[in-house]
Amino acid sequence: MDITGIMGFVLAIFLMIFGIVFNVDAGIVFANMVNFIDYPSIAITVGGTLAVLMISFPTSIFLKIPKHLKIIFMPQSFDQHAYIKMITEFAKEARIRGLLSLEGKLADVKDEFLKKSLLLVVDSIDADKVNSILETELDHIDERHHSDIEFYQKGAAFAPAFGMIGTLIGLVNMLKQMSDPDAIGPAMAVALLTTLYGSLLANIFFLPIANKLKIRHDEEMLCKMIVAQGVKSIQAGENPRFIEEKLLLMIESKKRSPRGSVEKTDKKAKALNTKKADA
Amino acid sequence: MDITGIMGFVLAIFLMIFGIVFNVDAGIVFANMVNFIDYPSIAITVGGTLAVLMISFPTSIFLKIPKHLKIIFMPQSFDQHAYIKMITEFAKEARIRGLLSLEGKLADVKDEFLKKSLLLVVDSIDADKVNSILETELDHIDERHHSDIEFYQKGAAFAPAFGMIGTLIGLVNMLKQMSDPDAIGPAMAVALLTTLYGSLLANIFFLPIANKLKIRHDEEMLCKMIVAQGVKSIQAGENPRFIEEKLLLMIESKKRSPRGSVEKTDKKAKALNTKKADA
Amino acid sequence: MDITGIMGFVLAIFLMIFGIVFNVDAGIVFANMVNFIDYPSIAITVGGTLAVLMISFPTSIFLKIPKHLKIIFMPQSFDQHAYIKMITEFAKEARIRGLLSLEGKLADVKDEFLKKSLLLVVDSIDADKVNSILETELDHIDERHHSDIEFYQKGAAFAPAFGMIGTLIGLVNMLKQMSDPDAIGPAMAVALLTTLYGSLLANIFFLPIANKLKIRHDEEMLCKMIVAQGVKSIQAGENPRFIEEKLLLMIESKKRSPRGSVEKTDKKAKALNTKKADA
Amino acid sequence: MDITGIMGFVLAIFLMIFGIVFNVDAGIVFANMVNFIDYPSIAITVGGTLAVLMISFPTSIFLKIPKHLKIIFMPQSFDQHAYIKMITEFAKEARIRGLLSLEGKLADVKDEFLKKSLLLVVDSIDADKVNSILETELDHIDERHHSDIEFYQKGAAFAPAFGMIGTLIGLVNMLKQMSDPDAIGPAMAVALLTTLYGSLLANIFFLPIANKLKIRHDEEMLCKMIVAQGVKSIQAGENPRFIEEKLLLMIESKKRSPRGSVEKTDKKAKALNTKKADA
Amino acid sequence: MDITGIMGFVLAIFLMIFGIVFNVDAGIVFANMVNFIDYPSIAITVGGTLAVLMISFPTSIFLKIPKHLKIIFMPQSFDQHAYIKMITEFAKEARIRGLLSLEGKLADVKDEFLKKSLLLVVDSIDADKVNSILETELDHIDERHHSDIEFYQKGAAFAPAFGMIGTLIGLVNMLKQMSDPDAIGPAMAVALLTTLYGSLLANIFFLPIANKLKIRHDEEMLCKMIVAQGVKSIQAGENPRFIEEKLLLMIESKKRSPRGSVEKTDKKAKALNTKKADA
Repeated sequence: MDITGIMGFVLAIFLMIFGIVFNVDAGIVFANMVNFIDYPSIAITVGGTLAVLMISFPTSIFLKIPKHLKIIFMPQSFDQHAYIKMITEFAKEARIRGLLSLEGKLADVKDEFLKKSLLLVVDSIDADKVNSILETELDHIDERHHSDIEFYQKGAAFAPAFGMIGTLIGLVNMLKQMSDPDAIGPAMAVALLTTLYGSLLANIFFLPIANKLKIRHDEEMLCKMIVAQGVKSIQAGENPRFIEEKLLLMIESKKRSPRGSVEKTDKKAKALNTKKADA
Repeated sequence: MDITGIMGFVLAIFLMIFGIVFNVDAGIVFANMVNFIDYPSIAITVGGTLAVLMISFPTSIFLKIPKHLKIIFMPQSFDQHAYIKMITEFAKEARIRGLLSLEGKLADVKDEFLKKSLLLVVDSIDADKVNSILETELDHIDERHHSDIEFYQKGAAFAPAFGMIGTLIGLVNMLKQMSDPDAIGPAMAVALLTTLYGSLLANIFFLPIANKLKIRHDEEMLCKMIVAQGVKSIQAGENPRFIEEKLLLMIESKKRSPRGSVEKTDKKAKALNTKKADA
Repeated sequence: MDITGIMGFVLAIFLMIFGIVFNVDAGIVFANMVNFIDYPSIAITVGGTLAVLMISFPTSIFLKIPKHLKIIFMPQSFDQHAYIKMITEFAKEARIRGLLSLEGKLADVKDEFLKKSLLLVVDSIDADKVNSILETELDHIDERHHSDIEFYQKGAAFAPAFGMIGTLIGLVNMLKQMSDPDAIGPAMAVALLTTLYGSLLANIFFLPIANKLKIRHDEEMLCKMIVAQGVKSIQAGENPRFIEEKLLLMIESKKRSPRGSVEKTDKKAKALNTKKADA
Repeated sequence: MDITGIMGFVLAIFLMIFGIVFNVDAGIVFANMVNFIDYPSIAITVGGTLAVLMISFPTSIFLKIPKHLKIIFMPQSFDQHAYIKMITEFAKEARIRGLLSLEGKLADVKDEFLKKSLLLVVDSIDADKVNSILETELDHIDERHHSDIEFYQKGAAFAPAFGMIGTLIGLVNMLKQMSDPDAIGPAMAVALLTTLYGSLLANIFFLPIANKLKIRHDEEMLCKMIVAQGVKSIQAGENPRFIEEKLLLMIESKKRSPRGSVEKTDKKAKALNTKKADA
Repeated sequence: MDITGIMGFVLAIFLMIFGIVFNVDAGIVFANMVNFIDYPSIAITVGGTLAVLMISFPTSIFLKIPKHLKIIFMPQSFDQHAYIKMITEFAKEARIRGLLSLEGKLADVKDEFLKKSLLLVVDSIDADKVNSILETELDHIDERHHSDIEFYQKGAAFAPAFGMIGTLIGLVNMLKQMSDPDAIGPAMAVALLTTLYGSLLANIFFLPIANKLKIRHDEEMLCKMIVAQGVKSIQAGENPRFIEEKLLLMIESKKRSPRGSVEKTDKKAKALNTKKADA
């Protein structure tokens, strides 16, 4: 569960409602909420955005929205250290009992990409071919994720546009029928609502989702790259300790504070040292 | 027929009309429609956008608009599995009866690109040359599609600009002749109409078309890449089963859910396994 | 003559004037034109844009404007088929009578790039060197054209900015001297004129020119690439029929409808077939 | 301490307060400050921006904000000359007493990257491997810094959006309850405050931080590249004087005025001259 | 002296003043100037922009502003033909009397880059090393210039932002104290002044400088690339006439009209012809 993300979402909603109902003189006025709910305005903004997204993207992308929300708020953990540990153990197993011995262990592997990659190795597919298959796979995941992210980015562009269209429709209607001066204010308020809806839709829904999907994508890709690198090293029959070192370097520099403590380096230096003796 | 796309378009139009005619107090007021139709405003916005697109692009692109609409709403299906099946059968035929035997079968092939590519192979053109011809072809298709897409993107930029120009013209005329205060409201309403037209043109017509053409282009390119890859494999005399596997991998990673079921992988692993025995 | 382009320009001007003079109640009111002409506003917007373009770009670019307009409205025709025909004939001549025999024929060649490129071949310059000279030349043309296009793009950015600056100046003057309420409307109308001028300048002049120059550039580059490819093939002593085929492939995929008729492919296939026998 | 940076920040705050309290007629009116403080507006703008950043980014990035501020206002000095001096001395030591002799000296090295890089050399890791490890490290630092910078850039985009959302909420509430005409002005003032907060947040906080982090990143990367280059040269056993020259060239062209004095060049030329004799 | 640039700047200032003081009815009213000068507004806009630039960039960049203005308005002439002539003479000298003979002539060379590059050759530095040093140098100049240009681009982004911030501050103060209706107009005029200042700062100062620095940079880089190419050719001992030809080709395509006269080509062809005999 991405607690911060959910808190962020709840906080955003809460703050918008607070901004609506709070009045410096009168305190909390829940009646204000009524001013901000207008079904035709919702229809124009949310419906219009949805409609042009339906023209712009294939149907399949809409079915993925629940999955995207799940990825964002209840992400599969990509524990890089766990992956490295798993790969190191496979490497040890392969060193001691041969690559074929890995086949039996694959049943327990939950990560599809790791499983498939190892199967290629177990099946003695040529190293070059394994390399090209893994790279094609990573490229395609990258492409697919980016086109998913683009869906939300386009949504974030369409929503304020339909907000403005709604406001223009409201203004034209209001200006054409300006008989009662007292009605101008409330009519204009309603006209502005679509602009508000459009901005909220873009800034609380579409853009944060696009950003977070990008972050999740980067996390997943790092793990996938660790797996790809690890599997290639296992196939090459490299020393398990060396494989572990190499994979740790890939994430260390991601995690480590740029001006961190010296001790950690000392430890790594020693590890590299012993590795030397091993080689 | 792209049902979702057509529904999206109908929904967008319907919602705009609903936003125009619906009134919280009076219900549906069809008379409001009259407020939103102003021929000089349409002339300025639609005509102006059309005029500068005529300056900006060659005539030929305008003749392609109906074709683009057809691509969007009644797309040629690019069924990747059908392509892979077809290519696999050609590969089997070529293995059993030789490359020349494909010539007779080409009459039934409807896809021009597949046909032409196979003809190159049948004609025993050098593998390097085939490769370079196919790549040049794909590059040019890519370029041509992108310049088509750019036409709609430029349209989406010009339309709101002419909307604003129209509004400014209306405002200047109104402000210069402000004799009757009661006339200000309706005059301003008319002035705002061009901005509304410009926004609608950009967000319901130009942008969704540009986006969908991009999606269609990606689908077509994936099929073309499958064909190119398949034809090259047939020429190289690869095992038909292996060709099928390889092409399936190209689309699988596009379709498969990123964290899909393990069974599928097992099956593929077995297939890869048997392939091994075959090689 | 680019009839569509000129029609587009005339149409844009006509529509703007129509928008200005047409009045739903009174019909055509040419007196409205007076509302839209204000010399100080023109000075600020057009002059200001010109002034900052003078700071931003070297003098030489201003002298190129007439040439750019000529390229846009009276373009040199880049008939790709004519080029291919010419090159094919040179190739035949070179095959029959040797490369040196081309020298005499060069006097009739009007295209400077083709002439120069062929001269390199006639002079027996090394193939690698010819290749590098032609590529450098194409790169530099590309760069120069893009910096020309940038001039108009910057103009399209500066014009609305000076439009807004003019409106702000007008508003400040108006607000400071608000003695006569009846004068506010017309004063505001004049203030808005600069914004209108800036938008028109950007959207009817600068942007369409920038777009069309880009299109012309692409056309010219395709021809230049055909010439470069053809000259290299002539130097390599390739079969004239094969050269023609190869160059046609470069433009075919540009022109051909993506899902065109099958006959054309058949014909090409045959041509490729005969070529084979020739090789 | 980045004095200019802190002065800039203080100056920006001071100028905003000056703009708020200064009145041409009445001089300094501190009472004006009250007009600009509205807690619900702060909640909507600052809170809303924070909330969507919480959805958009992982928690870890928020914990880095103090570190980023420290990097900006109290930067670790990356004195390139000191680094070059240090590396030159290590090079001399390595030449005279061998690479292993560096191990003892590493305890005094404070820069983690330099230390780790030298350790790789001391541990006789293969030159190719050292090269690939250093490059991976630099790539990852680059990536991590850029994703940090993106956090502030997204903040700079969200803040004005929530400013506008707050203003729309305020306007709708105001327009709906327009009973007392005298209350309109102050109510509108409050509504505008969120837009002001959003702009200030973006332009005084988020954007300058993003820009300065980018500058700091460039400085750090230059030092890291000097270290990487130096360590590789030490491993290759290059002449210490030549290493110094080479590293100085990397920063000289960064620091030197583009049309500087000729003397400096003469000196360098001489140095290069003597180097020759040395080689 | 860049006469056009200075004229552009003077013209821009003049037009702004003209727009301010000219009144259709009253002619030139210099008293209007007073409406446009407001010191607190200047403080907020210019000061605020300066302050955030101080946070965003290192101090050193501010010290370069006079130098940048000199580069823009009194540019060092980069006469490409003079450079080519100089290099050709060095090439002749080197051919006749050897590379070392160049040393004596270097005292007269004013261009630092040419001098330093030739010194590398005179010092018999290895050709590969010379090549890598020159390329590193060009890369660094490119990078440094681009970060200078970015300073002005960021200024052009901050200035209008602080203009808007100033206007919002003015509006809030005005709306809060709306007692005297007659004071609203002038107060609003003052509030708008900051937006005007911000636009002028961006469009008359920052953006044109950024654009012109980019142009100057391109001119300088072309000369530097000619020098680098020439020096490498001298080191390779190429024929001086051939070097001249080669360098001329680099600028010809920059200067020559794209569809220029045929004579020039004939001449070049002859030159290439004779060169052939020479080789």
